[in-house]
Amino acid sequence: MSHQPHERVDIALGERSYPILIGPHLLEDDELLSEHIAARNLLIVTNETIAPLYLRPLQTALKQQRTAAVVLPDGEQYKTLDTLSRIFDALVSERMNRDAAVVALGGGVIGDMAGFAAACYQRGIDYIQVPTTLLAQVDSSVGGKTAVNHPSAKNMIGAFHQPRCVIADTATLHTLPEREFAAGIAEIVKYGLIYDPAFFVWLEEHAEALLKRLDSAVIYAVRRSCEIKAEVVGIDEREHGLRAILNLGHTFGHAIETASGYGNWLHGEAVAAGMVMAADLSERLGWLPGADKQRAIALLKRFNLPVDPPRIGAERARELMGLDKKVLDGKLRLVLLRSLGKADVVSDYSGEAFAATMRTHFDTAA
Amino acid sequence: MSHQPHERVDIALGERSYPILIGPHLLEDDELLSEHIAARNLLIVTNETIAPLYLRPLQTALKQQRTAAVVLPDGEQYKTLDTLSRIFDALVSERMNRDAAVVALGGGVIGDMAGFAAACYQRGIDYIQVPTTLLAQVDSSVGGKTAVNHPSAKNMIGAFHQPRCVIADTATLHTLPEREFAAGIAEIVKYGLIYDPAFFVWLEEHAEALLKRLDSAVIYAVRRSCEIKAEVVGIDEREHGLRAILNLGHTFGHAIETASGYGNWLHGEAVAAGMVMAADLSERLGWLPGADKQRAIALLKRFNLPVDPPRIGAERARELMGLDKKVLDGKLRLVLLRSLGKADVVSDYSGEAFAATMRTHFDTAA
Repeated sequence: MSHQPHERVDIALGERSYPILIGPHLLEDDELLSEHIAARNLLIVTNETIAPLYLRPLQTALKQQRTAAVVLPDGEQYKTLDTLSRIFDALVSERMNRDAAVVALGGGVIGDMAGFAAACYQRGIDYIQVPTTLLAQVDSSVGGKTAVNHPSAKNMIGAFHQPRCVIADTATLHTLPEREFAAGIAEIVKYGLIYDPAFFVWLEEHAEALLKRLDSAVIYAVRRSCEIKAEVVGIDEREHGLRAILNLGHTFGHAIETASGYGNWLHGEAVAAGMVMAADLSERLGWLPGADKQRAIALLKRFNLPVDPPRIGAERARELMGLDKKVLDGKLRLVLLRSLGKADVVSDYSGEAFAATMRTHFDTAA
Repeated sequence: MSHQPHERVDIALGERSYPILIGPHLLEDDELLSEHIAARNLLIVTNETIAPLYLRPLQTALKQQRTAAVVLPDGEQYKTLDTLSRIFDALVSERMNRDAAVVALGGGVIGDMAGFAAACYQRGIDYIQVPTTLLAQVDSSVGGKTAVNHPSAKNMIGAFHQPRCVIADTATLHTLPEREFAAGIAEIVKYGLIYDPAFFVWLEEHAEALLKRLDSAVIYAVRRSCEIKAEVVGIDEREHGLRAILNLGHTFGHAIETASGYGNWLHGEAVAAGMVMAADLSERLGWLPGADKQRAIALLKRFNLPVDPPRIGAERARELMGLDKKVLDGKLRLVLLRSLGKADVVSDYSGEAFAATMRTHFDTAA
């Protein structure tokens, strides 16, 4: 297949600038791929779920290049140094040199691992993302973050490494299970909440079309999400300030994910519940009107997302949040909402309000 | 101890600039350390050989900071992803955050692993080098290269990550075994050969003082080596062109090291024999006068360095060189000598001359 219609977002990062191409059936578009993938030797990294669906079509479309593939087990629990070493083994045994590139075909876990492997192999080779989940398309496409987990902490070991291009094939989303699709929507809602009130309203108005996965709605939501993330990251590539607002709901979310064991709560689900907690704390601090918190909750619910965390206990959650990467100098910084569409990173909030939010959401109801 | 006299080389890399401090007993100099190490939380990475000698003195001198230590087994064979994960375990269990730093106390293996761990932990924290071998002081202090080995290929997995400062304590060299000291000299000779004819002559004239490890001679040799490497690397931080001349003897050397099993030939020893091979090929190509090759061999011999590789077989060596990182696009680039003090990276040399050098040095004498 050639010449699929698509939209394009350009990520401006000087000599590391790259395009995100968004549209249906792009991973089968041989002309588009050969236009954007310069390397002649490619290692495709994918997993057991994705390989039967998309590996062959992608390899067929990449017929101009030499491709090899490594198929990893599927799941966040495999996002480890051990699994990473299987990618290195494949790169070495396929005799990939500095001019080779890694292609990440899959969701965020595959993207994180393949990108990190590319960052480290021979101290850095190119990589190309072909995200096949909504979450990966709106989150991992921008920012250059790659990582694996440590047994005690998520994304503890990683690198900043920008892709050469991102091929976001929206047709792949039709095979995505409902829960995973919804988890991607959670991050999309996040972009509206932290940065763009108009986009939040657009989401309220197009919830139906998005739930039906209509091409036009999905393409717009992915594009707008990438644009917002690019704007935030472009201002602050290495996460010193503004970029932290992208972590809305994530600090609470990490506690949820860790307590439940990686993979039992999807990342987006944990973020959804975490965003509600951030909204709750924002309301307690008098920043966010209660009605706006309710609008956020209502929108998340329409997308079938959880708005309440599991009762893991406030004490335990606090402990789990203590090792979180976002702790700077012993102080817990949180992303909170000034209004729908505006977030701030703060650490001088009232500890009492924080404790109340923690108790309300993590402790067993009295 | 405070206020030890020392020399200083400044590595100019914009906002990642850092100083190399060179002199005796610097790792015990509490004032110097607190002046140059900003982080309040430090993980010292060292090995079983170095720890009994220098860990306590260093921790004593760092009494202003919180220090923890991880003691790894000693040897190139432990420069693996598995050992690396022990550093990550220590960083996590000591609750080191983004503001913490890793201190590499040891030789090149420790520096490479500790630096790579720092490059990856939370996607990059600071690190400080305290090199205790001559090789590490003249080689790893400059360039920002960090890595671990893959079972099939050296330094295959790594990152570019600059230290915040380097504390080259020349008193530590007095406990260095003779073979290791000589291996460091090999790299020092290399700097003369590739870049500085006057330094080569200085080495011929001060061989005796260096062999006796006299402070003034050692400090000058370390300083001049760091300066030369800094000049080369400063021009070409990411190894696209000129920097490759630093690999004089290394492509042949890698074959020697790999065939002998990591650690049986010291890196510097393999480089010494490899440099002789490079000189031999340079002579065959009519670039280097035979008398100059003999001067290089004579100088290496004075430092008790091997000038002939083991007879691993030219075919096997060629194969081992085939996966070398320096292969670009299937073509074997080599660093050769135009004269004593001037090197070039070339790939358009005569294949016949190359084969003759390989046969002469790797095949069993007829």
